[in-house]
Amino acid sequence: MFLILYYDVNEKRCPKMLKTCRKYLKWVQNSVFEGELTKAKVEYLKKDIEKIIKEEDEDSVVIYQFRTLNYSKRDVVGYDKKNDSQFL
Amino acid sequence: MFLILYYDVNEKRCPKMLKTCRKYLKWVQNSVFEGELTKAKVEYLKKDIEKIIKEEDEDSVVIYQFRTLNYSKRDVVGYDKKNDSQFL
Repeated sequence: MFLILYYDVNEKRCPKMLKTCRKYLKWVQNSVFEGELTKAKVEYLKKDIEKIIKEEDEDSVVIYQFRTLNYSKRDVVGYDKKNDSQFL
Repeated sequence: MFLILYYDVNEKRCPKMLKTCRKYLKWVQNSVFEGELTKAKVEYLKKDIEKIIKEEDEDSVVIYQFRTLNYSKRDVVGYDKKNDSQFL
């Protein structure tokens, strides 16, 4: 499964979210992650996220799962930060 | 074509990016947009973005295009801001 994950959470929780998401996926941009995960790992990731975020504070995490990328295209306008992530 | 667009640009250029992206797509989260566009409109959107961003400042805009969402799933953990966008 290919995932695109983006979050919008309270600033206090950003470091923990960054650390958690980076265990599973690749950082591609502020608050945005991409990568391949098994179904089981997707569930673990969701559980880890649920421990961090506070819905009452309108913390929001969107996870798109794609069984195939055959029908998709990824374009970058400007600079592609995906290659920077090893510096984080 | 279904699009997921996310950008990471210099703060000075955020208002212009927000305004431009909202002409074409739906705001779903800080710097993240989703929506259906024709191929022609995708090209117009890219041209508008190219007029705004500065690659030398590492401004970055990623555009995922999906010909179908049949093989995908969208999960939200926490609060779904997609419904707030009419208040923006």
